[in-house]
Amino acid sequence: MNQKIIPDVVSNQTVCSVAVSDTTRAAAEAMTKDNISAVIVAGDNGNLIGILTERDLARHVVAKGADATKVLVGDIMTANPDTLTPDDSAGDALELMHSRNYRHLPVAVDGKCVAMVSIRDLYRVMKAALEEDIRETEAFVFGDRYGA
Amino acid sequence: MNQKIIPDVVSNQTVCSVAVSDTTRAAAEAMTKDNISAVIVAGDNGNLIGILTERDLARHVVAKGADATKVLVGDIMTANPDTLTPDDSAGDALELMHSRNYRHLPVAVDGKCVAMVSIRDLYRVMKAALEEDIRETEAFVFGDRYGA
Repeated sequence: MNQKIIPDVVSNQTVCSVAVSDTTRAAAEAMTKDNISAVIVAGDNGNLIGILTERDLARHVVAKGADATKVLVGDIMTANPDTLTPDDSAGDALELMHSRNYRHLPVAVDGKCVAMVSIRDLYRVMKAALEEDIRETEAFVFGDRYGA
Repeated sequence: MNQKIIPDVVSNQTVCSVAVSDTTRAAAEAMTKDNISAVIVAGDNGNLIGILTERDLARHVVAKGADATKVLVGDIMTANPDTLTPDDSAGDALELMHSRNYRHLPVAVDGKCVAMVSIRDLYRVMKAALEEDIRETEAFVFGDRYGA
């Protein structure tokens, strides 16, 4: 698993972001529109300052019976989230997500989020890599004519 | 991938369920308490009649600015969800979840839900199976002394 986060796992992503002062309702609308389950929270200078997930909305708005037009993103987001760098390996990222039970991790460059990686993205890459390992090992065993 | 859903992917699970007449707030509380992101909806006879996820709560309660103490599970659940059987293969289940973009599937026996499988559970099993394939192929190539 020597794949790098960028470009092997994600590339050319448009990152959806919200502000701490946005309502959680507005954030949920943005997530619905973009069909994503986690959104980054950016400061005025565009820097990554937090992450908000469907889980946060379920636990801190719905389970509390709170009014999503009054609860703000800054009230329930996870501030200063762990991040990946573009050069991180897919394998290391997957270990981190497993050990900390994350489903999403922002990829940051100079404090700004350039992509969001899901555990699903990482599994897809890992599966392809393992299958390639198997194919290469089989080719070594059986030679070029295998499968011909 | 000849692993079966039960017992290879999940076993001895206690299934958390809610009723159609429960409020979405109560469902979110139950999901928070059990640390799960999807809950099954059971009828009076215990039969599986729906599924409710964190995504449903984010999209149909929070994004609408609705009152979770007034929106009922039956208003927003997915009724008659696709299900797995205990004998289904992990590989087939993973294909189904990928093609339909599911994260969770209930496992049903005689109309009752006996377990909930997440795409994460399936990836875990699949990864182990692929790694075992690689080990076996390497053992075949290099013989018993490999790694000794």
